[in-house]
Amino acid sequence: MKRLSRQIISLAQAEALKVALKAYAPYSGFRVGAALIMQDYTIYTGSNVENRSYGLTICAERVAIATAITHGRKDFLALILYTPDASQAIPPCGACRQVISEFTSPSFPIYFTKDGKRFIKKTIAQLYPFDSLHELAK
Amino acid sequence: MKRLSRQIISLAQAEALKVALKAYAPYSGFRVGAALIMQDYTIYTGSNVENRSYGLTICAERVAIATAITHGRKDFLALILYTPDASQAIPPCGACRQVISEFTSPSFPIYFTKDGKRFIKKTIAQLYPFDSLHELAK
Amino acid sequence: MKRLSRQIISLAQAEALKVALKAYAPYSGFRVGAALIMQDYTIYTGSNVENRSYGLTICAERVAIATAITHGRKDFLALILYTPDASQAIPPCGACRQVISEFTSPSFPIYFTKDGKRFIKKTIAQLYPFDSLHELAK
Amino acid sequence: MKRLSRQIISLAQAEALKVALKAYAPYSGFRVGAALIMQDYTIYTGSNVENRSYGLTICAERVAIATAITHGRKDFLALILYTPDASQAIPPCGACRQVISEFTSPSFPIYFTKDGKRFIKKTIAQLYPFDSLHELAK
Repeated sequence: MKRLSRQIISLAQAEALKVALKAYAPYSGFRVGAALIMQDYTIYTGSNVENRSYGLTICAERVAIATAITHGRKDFLALILYTPDASQAIPPCGACRQVISEFTSPSFPIYFTKDGKRFIKKTIAQLYPFDSLHELAK
Repeated sequence: MKRLSRQIISLAQAEALKVALKAYAPYSGFRVGAALIMQDYTIYTGSNVENRSYGLTICAERVAIATAITHGRKDFLALILYTPDASQAIPPCGACRQVISEFTSPSFPIYFTKDGKRFIKKTIAQLYPFDSLHELAK
Repeated sequence: MKRLSRQIISLAQAEALKVALKAYAPYSGFRVGAALIMQDYTIYTGSNVENRSYGLTICAERVAIATAITHGRKDFLALILYTPDASQAIPPCGACRQVISEFTSPSFPIYFTKDGKRFIKKTIAQLYPFDSLHELAK
Repeated sequence: MKRLSRQIISLAQAEALKVALKAYAPYSGFRVGAALIMQDYTIYTGSNVENRSYGLTICAERVAIATAITHGRKDFLALILYTPDASQAIPPCGACRQVISEFTSPSFPIYFTKDGKRFIKKTIAQLYPFDSLHELAK
């Protein structure tokens, strides 16, 4: 796997913030931006898109992933999540953890921040454990 | 509203087919591509992205819409839907009709095709009627 | 198909209101109750259940339908929808229209009310048109 | 919290299997049954309900939870999951983990089985970690 430099994370974090500000979140007022970094450092972004029928809301992480798939890419390197309206850094919801796990290996890193200064890093295995069948016996 | 020429529809249809071929549809085998045309003829595309937990599947139409939102755009002009694996042209599902209706006026046109030769055209008001409150009294 | 008397509709409407008051709607404040009437007049109910990740919200209509399925029943006769917090009677969202259409024929009736006094009635074909393939050519 | 006896788990497992056999799973062929045990040992059940638009599928776990909410109950004691078509016991998907976590404390137990003979038990904190804000600093 390619190395993730501080520089590429900073760049992706700036992209994530940029799209967070374009989120369509009139119901929650909670804007989220996601930036998905590929093996060649291409970045695909996503904002959350809410709906008056709340259940049709799509999270930012899933928008970024679906955009990468649409471009024929599955070589995900890392995901950056920016939640500027949160009082604390917020990890992906369960639906997003499930969708991330469809395309990544256990060590896939997810970075989340509320201000771009401090990041929390968790792997998908930490956020979505007991996914693979062989793990169930543990 | 801007006019939709045959040329721009053809271009969008080609884009919709291109991304349909990149769909992640291992469970249904049913690939879908969507191309959302903006007022300045920018096109945002989306493929369907399925999940082993079927309920987390995202349709192509919603991917295209969320990508446009992520880019700060809500000036949707028309939506093209391409379903190359279908025996007949297929309109958007109910979830997509709801999401389309969040951002469009009743006359918003949706074109769907299975082969790029024959298109069926319906407005969102035809596909998602009795949406606005004033219509309920009819 | 069995006849729907005013009496059974009243009974179902009372059930729909009862469960609307039990809805888990802390985010929208918008409670919904659904009552699904079966051919033998058994009634299955559902409340809306929201989630802090808005996209995981389940509508009342789909809860009622899934409960009927869980009980081995697909002989749906009519659906009653009660939205006590609305300023006007509200029809089902697009996701619910899609799910209703999976199990019903075009003439399936949906009644919706905000106060139990005045009902609006629409068939699923009116709310979810252009569903069957043969309709697309129209 | 009430104690969970082997007897009540057996009873709930039988209910979960019963409703798994009533699942509407024509697309995946993968039937799931869930039984949610309340503090007074009342059991609410749910089957998975799929849709031709895959994204509108509802998992068995969420049906059981929504049914309990509809009945005004949030005093969940344990969840039993039965997947008779699986080659191995399967834990809840990410969407269900998120919805379970909305209503339960970290020690809430989830039992899953493919045959009713051997159960795997995990708490919601094990299946959905890094949920509460204070955990993020770990």
